[in-house]
Amino acid sequence: MSIQIPRGTQDILPGTVEKWQYIEKVAKELCEQYQYKEIRTPLFEHTELFERGVGDTTDIVQKEMYTFEDRGERSLTLRPEGTAGVVRSFVQHKMFGQVNQPVKLFYNGPMFRYERPQAGRFRQFVQFGVEAIGSDDPSIDAEVISLAMELYERLGLKELKLVINSLGDKESRIAHKEALINHFKPRIDEFCADCQMRLEKNPLRILDCKKDRDHELMATAPSLADYLNEESSAYFKKLQHYLTLMGIEFEVDPNLVRGLDYYNHTAFEIMSSAEGFGAITTLCGGGRYNGLSEDLGGPSAPGIGFALSIERLLSALEAENIQLPVAAALDCYFVAMGDQAKDKVVELTYKARKHHLHAEMDTLNRKMKAQIKSADRLKAKYVAILGEDELNEGSIVVKNMETGHQENVPFEKLVDYLKQS
Amino acid sequence: MSIQIPRGTQDILPGTVEKWQYIEKVAKELCEQYQYKEIRTPLFEHTELFERGVGDTTDIVQKEMYTFEDRGERSLTLRPEGTAGVVRSFVQHKMFGQVNQPVKLFYNGPMFRYERPQAGRFRQFVQFGVEAIGSDDPSIDAEVISLAMELYERLGLKELKLVINSLGDKESRIAHKEALINHFKPRIDEFCADCQMRLEKNPLRILDCKKDRDHELMATAPSLADYLNEESSAYFKKLQHYLTLMGIEFEVDPNLVRGLDYYNHTAFEIMSSAEGFGAITTLCGGGRYNGLSEDLGGPSAPGIGFALSIERLLSALEAENIQLPVAAALDCYFVAMGDQAKDKVVELTYKARKHHLHAEMDTLNRKMKAQIKSADRLKAKYVAILGEDELNEGSIVVKNMETGHQENVPFEKLVDYLKQS
Repeated sequence: MSIQIPRGTQDILPGTVEKWQYIEKVAKELCEQYQYKEIRTPLFEHTELFERGVGDTTDIVQKEMYTFEDRGERSLTLRPEGTAGVVRSFVQHKMFGQVNQPVKLFYNGPMFRYERPQAGRFRQFVQFGVEAIGSDDPSIDAEVISLAMELYERLGLKELKLVINSLGDKESRIAHKEALINHFKPRIDEFCADCQMRLEKNPLRILDCKKDRDHELMATAPSLADYLNEESSAYFKKLQHYLTLMGIEFEVDPNLVRGLDYYNHTAFEIMSSAEGFGAITTLCGGGRYNGLSEDLGGPSAPGIGFALSIERLLSALEAENIQLPVAAALDCYFVAMGDQAKDKVVELTYKARKHHLHAEMDTLNRKMKAQIKSADRLKAKYVAILGEDELNEGSIVVKNMETGHQENVPFEKLVDYLKQS
Repeated sequence: MSIQIPRGTQDILPGTVEKWQYIEKVAKELCEQYQYKEIRTPLFEHTELFERGVGDTTDIVQKEMYTFEDRGERSLTLRPEGTAGVVRSFVQHKMFGQVNQPVKLFYNGPMFRYERPQAGRFRQFVQFGVEAIGSDDPSIDAEVISLAMELYERLGLKELKLVINSLGDKESRIAHKEALINHFKPRIDEFCADCQMRLEKNPLRILDCKKDRDHELMATAPSLADYLNEESSAYFKKLQHYLTLMGIEFEVDPNLVRGLDYYNHTAFEIMSSAEGFGAITTLCGGGRYNGLSEDLGGPSAPGIGFALSIERLLSALEAENIQLPVAAALDCYFVAMGDQAKDKVVELTYKARKHHLHAEMDTLNRKMKAQIKSADRLKAKYVAILGEDELNEGSIVVKNMETGHQENVPFEKLVDYLKQS
């Protein structure tokens, strides 16, 4: 019996992987232009990191983590998101002490969540994200948002919607939290068990609940916008000011609450408004997480970042019918007739590749006709055919597959000949 | 208390990550020239895959795997190597039915083994590897070996040693196995428990045992070379013939046995012979695995591949004192004096980045002097300074940091000015 891939995961195969490579290349170049540097943290971390860093009242930590013990009986967890690991690394390597501040980082790699697999949702999925740690100026919030928008635009997406909100600072949040508790408490027994648990710990997350979303108390819940103190309001206005200067359109949605515990001040999402994109329209989510560094045992270090799923991005490209510019190249396919010729073709193919040409040859000992068919299928620019006569003359027949023009080229001139054209 | 990274793993940080990026770029280009396409398989697989695909008498499967149950009580294992997953994918997606044969694939990604951490050995490490499945012609063995050698050479390594051996086909291996059993059996109680278990199942692996390596029966054990049948000998000779044609130097080592169960015919290793490289000199290992596809429930499909650790490669580069050509670029650092100027600088920085320039600005509201210091530290090509006077004139002072030359450039001409130079 053959063994199948684990449920909720996928192989990314030739024919599709080129899109991933292209997106990664564009994202990396963009980050370099924005002066964000790559960081790679381990695929698993101590479980405690996510309990403290993501928040132990979140769905992620309560229901979706791949947690296991290693042979040394440490509790490890496959990372469900990227920020906690990056901030852990920031603290551990004392990046807060570096001269260049803020520290601007990006990552791209697999994340793991045990969710019910469905269209566009995988248990192993890939997130690209950035983190800027060490500045609490609204201009860096605008920079982070603009980077995400610019990535989508460079890839050709047109139907985008940016939604922003302010979750306020600690003072504003405490005031709002009290108002929320007072609002829900009298009728909390009408809510789901999760929400009942959230009430005292993190009532803001009740607004995010999928089960209770139609309860009448949801619509009338006190809005954070009405509890923002002066500083938080000013911060949020400045962010909007910068986005406007940049010419980036946005909507303010006071109901935007991100699914992670650590956000404050800025929260934002980018959605696809493309028709037929499906129920889950969020492409990218991010926000400010002042306080997270302290929560992980580091010094005070304000941060902001976002994460976006590459799988979701590919769906959005598909919904807008965008073809990424990916194409395989094959400069020359070598065809050998007979054993002696094959020896020479092994040598010539190797030499062409050594000179950075894209070259291929037959390794199935097939007839000439089948070899030429392969060259055709692989869209080779040239086919180089070697028979015994040419071998004795020290040359090879090179045919331009587009023009049909063919020429005898001496072995020692072959690489130059292929490179010039 | 701050949370530390899990034991045996590492963060790859800016300053180092650029080397990884460079190696990956070179490897990817090389694979494209050799016509190998990338494949990405999941980071975990069903545990059974590795038991069947790597071999249940190997150290990897017996002692080193990260195995855990998911919430659906499936036994999953973080992949300890790349070949089993690739061949699983080859079978599952019926790649044996594709018109272009052999199927040539490469991968690059993290692998996981629970080993005692030591210099250059990590529990999460990164392997780059290739697999060519569907041809049993020795020319493809030579191609795979030459690809590995070429990668090291392109990165600048000089002190390399290629060692090859033949493990023969099934018939040869059975004959040799019998001879080995007869050789060790009478005194097997002098060997370790692992070897005693290996005797009947896989006596070849006894030769690989670290504990018993000094036992006198080791040196006198029957060599596989003496048991190769005619076909296996011819295959091995042809491989050597092709390597010679390519001008690739090699040694034949009849004691080379790879640590995985699935190899037959060709086995090879590339070592660093650089002084001070340390005890573990193997950079790359590979071999032929005819039969693996069948073991995983697929049709007969001969394959060959190799894997190499990027961590080990970095150590080898260090041992040979090779600097990879990595450099960060910063075209322009924008300096703002005053709030009004900052607004404009936010806009100009964004615009420069939108035009693919590498641009940076201050987001800490620091004094001008501190901002210019940052520009210096970041080795900016230009510094663009905006004060109130220039703002009113609609221009900005641009200074070439190398020549010292400075000029007033109108806002609308700035991008072109920075791009031209």
